[in-house]
Amino acid sequence: MRQAFHDELTQLCDQLAEMCALAVSAMQRANEALLESDLSLAEQVIADHEHIAAYNRRIEESAFRLLVLQQPVASELRTVVGSMHIAADIDRMGALAVHVADISRLRHPECALPDEVRASFTDMGSQAVRLAQTAQEVLVSRDPEAAARLRDEDDAVDAEHRHLFTLLLDRQWEDGVCSAVDVALLGRYYERFADHAVEIGKRVIFEATGGRPLHKKLA
Amino acid sequence: MRQAFHDELTQLCDQLAEMCALAVSAMQRANEALLESDLSLAEQVIADHEHIAAYNRRIEESAFRLLVLQQPVASELRTVVGSMHIAADIDRMGALAVHVADISRLRHPECALPDEVRASFTDMGSQAVRLAQTAQEVLVSRDPEAAARLRDEDDAVDAEHRHLFTLLLDRQWEDGVCSAVDVALLGRYYERFADHAVEIGKRVIFEATGGRPLHKKLA
Repeated sequence: MRQAFHDELTQLCDQLAEMCALAVSAMQRANEALLESDLSLAEQVIADHEHIAAYNRRIEESAFRLLVLQQPVASELRTVVGSMHIAADIDRMGALAVHVADISRLRHPECALPDEVRASFTDMGSQAVRLAQTAQEVLVSRDPEAAARLRDEDDAVDAEHRHLFTLLLDRQWEDGVCSAVDVALLGRYYERFADHAVEIGKRVIFEATGGRPLHKKLA
Repeated sequence: MRQAFHDELTQLCDQLAEMCALAVSAMQRANEALLESDLSLAEQVIADHEHIAAYNRRIEESAFRLLVLQQPVASELRTVVGSMHIAADIDRMGALAVHVADISRLRHPECALPDEVRASFTDMGSQAVRLAQTAQEVLVSRDPEAAARLRDEDDAVDAEHRHLFTLLLDRQWEDGVCSAVDVALLGRYYERFADHAVEIGKRVIFEATGGRPLHKKLA
């Protein structure tokens, strides 16, 4: 029975890593769709979100089943409960990639990004994808030190996000209100995407150490 | 022992309702601070978020303790696990009220809202507060029908949010880029605040009925 439990727990963790890989791919493609004004790529990201949402439902159901049938304690209980929180974070990451794709789609065939902020979104996009990749690796390795590094990686996204607002607000923005609104919301979506990756790291630390999870920063 | 368990479960539910009351108050004050450009009220909302965050930690700890010591099943398990998700939603509601307060504070002594959108934010503010109040009542009554009404109440917020973007994008916006960016982000904060109230309703329905929770809409 315990072997069966461990197999199910391993399967749950594998599912989380697979789900996170889908969020990596969603953000990679959403970012490319935004930079290249690629309508079909944007539409793919939007349509594919259903796979991420389905993982969320499956993981929540598996976690409930494990709680009912196996009544885990200590670190195993933290892993099972944590898996539900992590799945919710990854689901939000997918939803935020969809928001990015939505804006590309709405503005197509125009590009939603004025030239002035292209470099910022190139950087924030690759930083966000890297954070999600690190989160995925951490979901496999369960290494709390690697998980803690997610916070440092997030600092780069926050710095780029602040820089974006400098461009938007401090200079003479010449690209109009519609463009400024798109850029402000897009910036917010990338920032929140990265925050959820950091939350996954905190959960993994909590599961590994049993320490109180560091609670969310206000973002 | 079972009586002690039920007492703890009741206490957990009471804590959720108290925590939700804090989110109601945070949004009420953040909205007033925004409309009246009231700096000290905005600063209160920001400082008081620590109380909401502390509830989140306490509720998560209580839920873990109940899982370990009582190993609940069926509807009680759903209530214990759901309490952690609901606390996370309320925590986000508080964080979003803080974001609203942050913008008022940043723009003080100016008002962040141009006259053109004052009526929209008056409406969205009272709608958001009402949704949080309904969520609080539902956390006490545990009535799935009342919980389902949260979704209808949210439709009003979504409609107002769409109207706001019409004002921002379709007309000749004359209040400048900085103001447009503030208004777009503020609109997003109110919309997300309301979404989290709807999520609380979905959890209560799930707990009461055992049905699969309806999953998050993309917002």
